[in-house]
Amino acid sequence: MDLGQTERLKPVLASVKAMIKDEIAPMDEAFLAEVEKGDRWVLTARQSEILENLKSHAQAKGLWNFWDTLGDGPKLSTVEYAYLAEEMGKSHLAAEVFNCNAPDTGNMEVFARFGTAAMKTRWLKPLMAGQIRSAYLMTEPDIASSDATNIAMRCERQGDEYVLNGEKWWATGAGDPRCAVHIVMVRSSNDAPKHQQHSMIVVPADSPGITKLRAMEVYGHDDAPHGHIHFRYDNVRVPAENLLLGEGRGFEIAQNRLGPGRIHHCMRAIGQAEKALSLMCARSVSRHAFGKPLAQLGENFDLIAKARMDIEQARLLCLKAAWMMDQGDKRASAPWISQIKVVAPQVALAVTDMAIQMHGAAGVSQDTPLARQWTHLRTLRLADGPDAVHRRQVARAELAHYASGQNSS
Amino acid sequence: MDLGQTERLKPVLASVKAMIKDEIAPMDEAFLAEVEKGDRWVLTARQSEILENLKSHAQAKGLWNFWDTLGDGPKLSTVEYAYLAEEMGKSHLAAEVFNCNAPDTGNMEVFARFGTAAMKTRWLKPLMAGQIRSAYLMTEPDIASSDATNIAMRCERQGDEYVLNGEKWWATGAGDPRCAVHIVMVRSSNDAPKHQQHSMIVVPADSPGITKLRAMEVYGHDDAPHGHIHFRYDNVRVPAENLLLGEGRGFEIAQNRLGPGRIHHCMRAIGQAEKALSLMCARSVSRHAFGKPLAQLGENFDLIAKARMDIEQARLLCLKAAWMMDQGDKRASAPWISQIKVVAPQVALAVTDMAIQMHGAAGVSQDTPLARQWTHLRTLRLADGPDAVHRRQVARAELAHYASGQNSS
Amino acid sequence: MDLGQTERLKPVLASVKAMIKDEIAPMDEAFLAEVEKGDRWVLTARQSEILENLKSHAQAKGLWNFWDTLGDGPKLSTVEYAYLAEEMGKSHLAAEVFNCNAPDTGNMEVFARFGTAAMKTRWLKPLMAGQIRSAYLMTEPDIASSDATNIAMRCERQGDEYVLNGEKWWATGAGDPRCAVHIVMVRSSNDAPKHQQHSMIVVPADSPGITKLRAMEVYGHDDAPHGHIHFRYDNVRVPAENLLLGEGRGFEIAQNRLGPGRIHHCMRAIGQAEKALSLMCARSVSRHAFGKPLAQLGENFDLIAKARMDIEQARLLCLKAAWMMDQGDKRASAPWISQIKVVAPQVALAVTDMAIQMHGAAGVSQDTPLARQWTHLRTLRLADGPDAVHRRQVARAELAHYASGQNSS
Amino acid sequence: MDLGQTERLKPVLASVKAMIKDEIAPMDEAFLAEVEKGDRWVLTARQSEILENLKSHAQAKGLWNFWDTLGDGPKLSTVEYAYLAEEMGKSHLAAEVFNCNAPDTGNMEVFARFGTAAMKTRWLKPLMAGQIRSAYLMTEPDIASSDATNIAMRCERQGDEYVLNGEKWWATGAGDPRCAVHIVMVRSSNDAPKHQQHSMIVVPADSPGITKLRAMEVYGHDDAPHGHIHFRYDNVRVPAENLLLGEGRGFEIAQNRLGPGRIHHCMRAIGQAEKALSLMCARSVSRHAFGKPLAQLGENFDLIAKARMDIEQARLLCLKAAWMMDQGDKRASAPWISQIKVVAPQVALAVTDMAIQMHGAAGVSQDTPLARQWTHLRTLRLADGPDAVHRRQVARAELAHYASGQNSS
Repeated sequence: MDLGQTERLKPVLASVKAMIKDEIAPMDEAFLAEVEKGDRWVLTARQSEILENLKSHAQAKGLWNFWDTLGDGPKLSTVEYAYLAEEMGKSHLAAEVFNCNAPDTGNMEVFARFGTAAMKTRWLKPLMAGQIRSAYLMTEPDIASSDATNIAMRCERQGDEYVLNGEKWWATGAGDPRCAVHIVMVRSSNDAPKHQQHSMIVVPADSPGITKLRAMEVYGHDDAPHGHIHFRYDNVRVPAENLLLGEGRGFEIAQNRLGPGRIHHCMRAIGQAEKALSLMCARSVSRHAFGKPLAQLGENFDLIAKARMDIEQARLLCLKAAWMMDQGDKRASAPWISQIKVVAPQVALAVTDMAIQMHGAAGVSQDTPLARQWTHLRTLRLADGPDAVHRRQVARAELAHYASGQNSS
Repeated sequence: MDLGQTERLKPVLASVKAMIKDEIAPMDEAFLAEVEKGDRWVLTARQSEILENLKSHAQAKGLWNFWDTLGDGPKLSTVEYAYLAEEMGKSHLAAEVFNCNAPDTGNMEVFARFGTAAMKTRWLKPLMAGQIRSAYLMTEPDIASSDATNIAMRCERQGDEYVLNGEKWWATGAGDPRCAVHIVMVRSSNDAPKHQQHSMIVVPADSPGITKLRAMEVYGHDDAPHGHIHFRYDNVRVPAENLLLGEGRGFEIAQNRLGPGRIHHCMRAIGQAEKALSLMCARSVSRHAFGKPLAQLGENFDLIAKARMDIEQARLLCLKAAWMMDQGDKRASAPWISQIKVVAPQVALAVTDMAIQMHGAAGVSQDTPLARQWTHLRTLRLADGPDAVHRRQVARAELAHYASGQNSS
Repeated sequence: MDLGQTERLKPVLASVKAMIKDEIAPMDEAFLAEVEKGDRWVLTARQSEILENLKSHAQAKGLWNFWDTLGDGPKLSTVEYAYLAEEMGKSHLAAEVFNCNAPDTGNMEVFARFGTAAMKTRWLKPLMAGQIRSAYLMTEPDIASSDATNIAMRCERQGDEYVLNGEKWWATGAGDPRCAVHIVMVRSSNDAPKHQQHSMIVVPADSPGITKLRAMEVYGHDDAPHGHIHFRYDNVRVPAENLLLGEGRGFEIAQNRLGPGRIHHCMRAIGQAEKALSLMCARSVSRHAFGKPLAQLGENFDLIAKARMDIEQARLLCLKAAWMMDQGDKRASAPWISQIKVVAPQVALAVTDMAIQMHGAAGVSQDTPLARQWTHLRTLRLADGPDAVHRRQVARAELAHYASGQNSS
Repeated sequence: MDLGQTERLKPVLASVKAMIKDEIAPMDEAFLAEVEKGDRWVLTARQSEILENLKSHAQAKGLWNFWDTLGDGPKLSTVEYAYLAEEMGKSHLAAEVFNCNAPDTGNMEVFARFGTAAMKTRWLKPLMAGQIRSAYLMTEPDIASSDATNIAMRCERQGDEYVLNGEKWWATGAGDPRCAVHIVMVRSSNDAPKHQQHSMIVVPADSPGITKLRAMEVYGHDDAPHGHIHFRYDNVRVPAENLLLGEGRGFEIAQNRLGPGRIHHCMRAIGQAEKALSLMCARSVSRHAFGKPLAQLGENFDLIAKARMDIEQARLLCLKAAWMMDQGDKRASAPWISQIKVVAPQVALAVTDMAIQMHGAAGVSQDTPLARQWTHLRTLRLADGPDAVHRRQVARAELAHYASGQNSS
């Protein structure tokens, strides 16, 4: 069970770290500042310039599409990729610069594994080239999406087409003007067995009948131009071949899609936790009160130690979950992914909150990246399944070894 | 030790509750929506209309200036006032409508107790009439203000004037165009004993030499038009009589000012916690997953019980601290105020966070008041002294009963 | 809502404090040391002498039967009694010395309210005089007694008698040779509505058919000679008039009995928490490491503050629950008793554990009362209902205000 | 960074598991029950028989001395050994049966690395053969031993001898009649630099001048016949060559000795946590209340999930610390050992406490091994350095990367 950095990974990781430190992170604030200028939902010329320059550099260095199941990239294991994701977590732009941003990686995975040849040409190729972006439409406002069997968007066959009706929200990235395609979870049957009533279907973003109702806000932030869009679909029509794999196989695809994505999210969260701890330590030795550096006051030593211990444990658990995935047994790796999905965001949130407190009022302000980081991390306790659902999965896996009583709760 | 609602209070409390529920809370969102229109730092006509209407109603009903040490209001005890503050915590506008908003109540208190007759005429009277607003300038960006002896803004006597130089930030409410006066903590000596180097001085908000550098943001929000302003004072000159009580008595005034203010903050926080618990309960019985209302899934019963138990304890501790204040012994009540200053914000934050989680993604969005409430509450763990400083005070008070070792840490 | 010490209480409380400090607490260790000599389940002459001397003193001072619903004692309110219980928590022997020990107070209450005249003469009178002791047999080994409707001991009417069969365990105090009577919860019907299948019945401790199977141990301690006895009842026969109130009214009596008992337990726990905090503080200023008193190292200030804040909140919540009881509305006070039943033991355990840690290895040893106190307190999270059941009650009370979903979980 | 089970380890681990399950664990209760018969501090014939039989079996299978730096055992890495230690944690007798019990493994290590040839013959050989046992005397009653530089036992050179005076307590295993030798940390100088004032010296257990003052108790248990002995040394004389390595090198030896020992303790704690979780799960599906198995009530699913997540993280952190040790850089591995020393006991305690609560009153009783396990685990938060000291080490290591302020606190 090798959870370390392989020899193959080391130079790639070093290059990624260096490029983030030297080129990408220094542009984060400039990029974000542009959002306030003009139409928030159109990339400014300066934003495009920043992004495209960095992407070109990354491609030129071969730092591109690490999570590549089709192309000719480095073909990294999940464990190896996890180390890169941790680094990408430390900069706002990094994941996109390396074409490793969510939800595009997951969507590329879906096209690569389950898409038709036409889809690969039309969507996968430009996604892999970083020319377009994509969205994943799962959750809905009127149902508890934590139980995905509740998903209700209607999908009816009419001749050679499917017709979609309903609402989706929290379509992350769908605000971006480059977002060209939606992958959508829909209800194609009310009669089939519970986990075969849903399908996954591909919808061009400019299809007639799609209305952007609003941008959802996260603690008051719309995350423009990326965004989290609330859509209404009114009689949206797509060719029947846009339905992936066949009717009723939505959950099968979703399970394939979400595993790696959760690990990436979690390792980026670990990266953010490290960044917060680093800011906390630097503050604690440079700021003085009551005649001492903060580090030497009260419980601050204990908090720093706690942060270090919690981060190390969360990282090891992420790496173990990644290693389990690499072994190829989905059933065996599922509870590990649930474990890390609960643990990593909570650790990252707690460390970020400690770092905020160590900074005093500066911590909640625009003078550090901590407050923004916290609100972003907070959504991870809900995205891709709230904590409670994942704990439930972990408990069910545990109790499956015992005689009875493990069903439901 | 009567911590209950007195007979005198009951009708007042009922009126306050009714007016908040029927008139004020329904206007909260409309008022806040106006901020996005035009210049964020000027009240729109609609905002003024909403506020002034409500204030007139409140005055007409005699629901005005509950924290009144001068006027002819109901003269409530701190315990009685605490119950009102809890209610005001449940609406964005309520505290201002009843002329009970921070930092004005504290500033009125300062003018009433330590101000000259001229100050009472010029500042206290219009404050009590709700015609102007005020700010309190304490914390500074370049020092750890948690140790207030670090405060550095220079205040030099030149003839009949004092000349102020330095920076202050987090001047809450100073963004409001109606803010007419600053009460400022300054360093008037470097040689006096540690707690006699500082003074409190009154500065008209439009004095030459005052520059608004920027609005501080709280998790990305500028709270316009109220705001938290970062000021630079360059050779700001005020008449010598503007210095309150005398040089070196800044801490004496600060201590008087902050006690009640902290209790008000804490009771408003309790009100917000109740509101969050109420939203959490309503959600838990109306939303279904896995075939059951959320309330019946996993730990949700336990969380609701925990929220209830934590809120009750925090409220009782607030009331006890208020009762201690009412006994009139500042030295004895100080550690109680520190206790509640630590406890109440943490309980309110925890309950609000639970409520957010119970709402799923809606919880972090604009569809409930929870996310905004959380960011506001988060600042209370820093404002008026970070948790660590208050815990330190509690521990020192505890250890004062023991032989040795209680000094510093 | 007066939660303070009444004028009537003050001199009583002062006398109780003084007697505990000067006379009772100094005998605790001597009394406990006797247990190891000879038969653990017979009081030694020295033990009897210690106890009877102290009891005589207490009676002489009128410090006796504070929880008196029959006699001519001081007739204290629950709030007043709570302050006394807190003090009694600080000494092993105190509750018995004042004839206020569990389960006797609860049993006296039952006899006084629901007993026949004959029972009052035979059992209540000597209990009130401290001449005999009693036990309360509720929980059983083969069922989850947390759901008391599971209680299974059979109670069948045969002519003028009831015949009892089954096992009971954790009969606290039943090891004491002076224990003369059991009050027993039994199942008198399998057909009645769920909460009317049980009855409460009075059984002389020396009835034929009662076997002491063993003494239950608490973390390895049998608490001899008091003890927690595991009994088997084989065809134990008692006259029909021994059944209290009538068949099917067991829960009605149990509810009456347990409310005040829980508050007493909780206030004694608060007393133990205060004792632990006091030992922790004394240790923290007298012991040195790394050149400083422990108080000044790491998080120790923060822990002391946390202990103080948690104790104050738990005490206020206890007093509020006591006050609710004094208002006389059982339905309204029930969730308050559940709240304190969860909170007080957990706070007392946490503070005791902190104090143990502050003492280093001495903390777990026989050199302080902390380890013994911890194991005793730990049982309170289970006795009279485990935490989970009480949290469930609190949540149900909360959700009763909301539309639906509040039933079961 | 391979943290998995090597191919070499797998058959050994399987044999150890099987022997514990089939032969050793079934004898635990019988062995412990013997302690109550006759003199607690002499092994009964039955105890000796049980132990020697099992030891012979283990030796016959080659399952002996896994932590062998001298002999011809399997020479396992720390990571490999860790997996075995986890299994040994699940049975009271297992560690001794495989000759892997503390403090003997650490003491063997000291003799092997720092002992003279004579010591190896006299002490190491019979220790490796399981014929004698040993003790390690470090901590003292009159000083805060958490700061080991406080250690005070005097050690004065007189001619060819050293003369020792002072007290030591918590000498674990020194109650065993087979304990033949003490390794003792002493103060050999008051003038040398702080970390060179202490020495380690070998003292035969039957040396004149050694008095057993008492057995220390752990939550009331003396752990006879193993025991934790409080000794007085009065002019105990040993030949000068008994002083290991040279005067002033005590800390050097202690550091070498404690690293692996801490990992063993921690992995045994993980084993105990697994045992507790297993009992908790079995109980939760077999016991019913309110019409459901306990698993399906309230937060029980969440607790089971939390236990699983915490155990996995703690195990991975242990394995990482073991792997760091195997890399051979003591300075680099030290903070990892401190981390795990804090984490593993706390996780094992928390899981054991949850399991106790899930068992109701049975949990605190003699009917499960949980209560005994808890008291044993509780000492690990103090043994080999209290949590606070280890957190301090972790924080210092963290802050060493930052400019200043990292010294002391």
